[in-house]
Amino acid sequence: MPHDRVAKTIGELRALTDKPFNVNFFCHARPKVDAEREERWQGRLSPYYDELGVDRHSASRLDLPPFDDATCTVVEKARPAVVSFHFGLPEPALLARVKAAGCRVMSSATTVAEAIWLEAHGVDVVIAQGYEAGGHRATFLATDFNEAVSSQSGGLALIPQVVDAVRVPVVAAGAIADGRGIAAAFALGAAGVQIGTAYLLCPEAATPPLHRDALGHARPDTTVLTNVLTGRPARVHTNRFVREAGPMSDAVSDFPLPLGVLTPLRAKAEDRGSGAFSPLYAGQGSSLTKEQPAESLTRRLVQEAERRFQQLAS
Amino acid sequence: MPHDRVAKTIGELRALTDKPFNVNFFCHARPKVDAEREERWQGRLSPYYDELGVDRHSASRLDLPPFDDATCTVVEKARPAVVSFHFGLPEPALLARVKAAGCRVMSSATTVAEAIWLEAHGVDVVIAQGYEAGGHRATFLATDFNEAVSSQSGGLALIPQVVDAVRVPVVAAGAIADGRGIAAAFALGAAGVQIGTAYLLCPEAATPPLHRDALGHARPDTTVLTNVLTGRPARVHTNRFVREAGPMSDAVSDFPLPLGVLTPLRAKAEDRGSGAFSPLYAGQGSSLTKEQPAESLTRRLVQEAERRFQQLAS
Repeated sequence: MPHDRVAKTIGELRALTDKPFNVNFFCHARPKVDAEREERWQGRLSPYYDELGVDRHSASRLDLPPFDDATCTVVEKARPAVVSFHFGLPEPALLARVKAAGCRVMSSATTVAEAIWLEAHGVDVVIAQGYEAGGHRATFLATDFNEAVSSQSGGLALIPQVVDAVRVPVVAAGAIADGRGIAAAFALGAAGVQIGTAYLLCPEAATPPLHRDALGHARPDTTVLTNVLTGRPARVHTNRFVREAGPMSDAVSDFPLPLGVLTPLRAKAEDRGSGAFSPLYAGQGSSLTKEQPAESLTRRLVQEAERRFQQLAS
Repeated sequence: MPHDRVAKTIGELRALTDKPFNVNFFCHARPKVDAEREERWQGRLSPYYDELGVDRHSASRLDLPPFDDATCTVVEKARPAVVSFHFGLPEPALLARVKAAGCRVMSSATTVAEAIWLEAHGVDVVIAQGYEAGGHRATFLATDFNEAVSSQSGGLALIPQVVDAVRVPVVAAGAIADGRGIAAAFALGAAGVQIGTAYLLCPEAATPPLHRDALGHARPDTTVLTNVLTGRPARVHTNRFVREAGPMSDAVSDFPLPLGVLTPLRAKAEDRGSGAFSPLYAGQGSSLTKEQPAESLTRRLVQEAERRFQQLAS
């Protein structure tokens, strides 16, 4: 997100609440320039361009700026209570500025080694992102995404092992969508939980109708980890493109370039009511969720978790 | 295991305890005869035969009989309290005999659909086998193992969704190795837990030294799901053969034939102190375990879980 939109969004949030909130940023490395690889991936997609009658040259090379100086300046002014990063941490000088502004810093680990690295580099909280989680894997120490995906840990294994490995509090993420999941995460040693997919169905969320529809039909075994939509592994509700080009591919170009190549196809398909080329991010807990306003969902989750704690002790 | 060894093993167990126990059987379909496919897989392994100086013709075609009439007769006589099956259920006539003998029947589900199928076919208990679990995936409704492996559910997602889908009690399996995992499984709605890897390190277990050594070094991200050792997906501590031939391969012959082809290589490598060709079954909770006698491990697990329940309620 460009820095001026970050500033605008934080301003809008402040107008809605005086409570603390969390702003999240991607801090990926810029894609390597590799024209041959990019052309090969575009070639892989050309039959779809033909099929949908989309001009092959209509895709622009997507630039998704990672957390940078301009965005950091916005954060220093706005001082959100919590700043989280995905794909590791930004360069040390930027991180130091965020911390000096008084923001608590969190980042996600998909392995014990990543949790230890994050603690050593100064995070206040580690998020243990289980294999079940929807959206992008935080994976940042691995060099081979295929290998990393085949050795990802489920939350039941990852959470207690991260808790044992670091001193900072651990927040659990992945397939937590009701009071049972919250109680389980705390049983495993988590100090908090991060809930994603369940809130995507709230009327307040900007989730597009096609994505809502997919979440309504998702079952735990209809989601897969795929890198063909964006260039990095992400858990999505599977669709035609993921099935045909993936789920994992060695040929895909660097994040976020595949997203740019996909945009014209996605737009054309979505116009026709199809999510065949859309990134339908979804966790494995999707089918535990149902549409509910955010406030009542939050209250229900807390009540369910507290009831669960009491049931377990009796 | 041949039926006479089953009878002998149950007899030995009876001599050691008058408590109820569980006997487990594989009920896979016999491998399809496909000489071309088998030869191709043997060809894939021939460089290893050359490297280790093993005669290519020393491997015999492995026959691992599934649960059959003779074994069923042993069960009818011995009447163990619980009989569990892996890879679905045996044919209806055999299952009816086991139930008529008064045994409680359990089987494992890796998806909600498999759990519903097992309940409809008469199991008394469904085991929800999470993605984290060591050893063979129970997967029995899928026709494509590669596809099935890429959509396996972590326990945090699978357990509550199976609990919601069936009326019979659900036992949780996968990465449960300490009191935290037990408490989490109960929080998710399980009525019991099945603990595998943690007991492999007990001095009472027949776990070979090389396998013990691997478990001692396993981390959650050193295990992978692979079909190259046996022909069916299983979670193991990775080794050279799994890395080079897998972890998943489309070319592998039917279960259990690859195990037969591997046997001479494994024996030669193990003689040299190497587990490079051994199936080192391990769950993602391996590093949560340590060597401890079975009785004190069991007592510790119960105490830890009960303490956890009380902590959560306070």
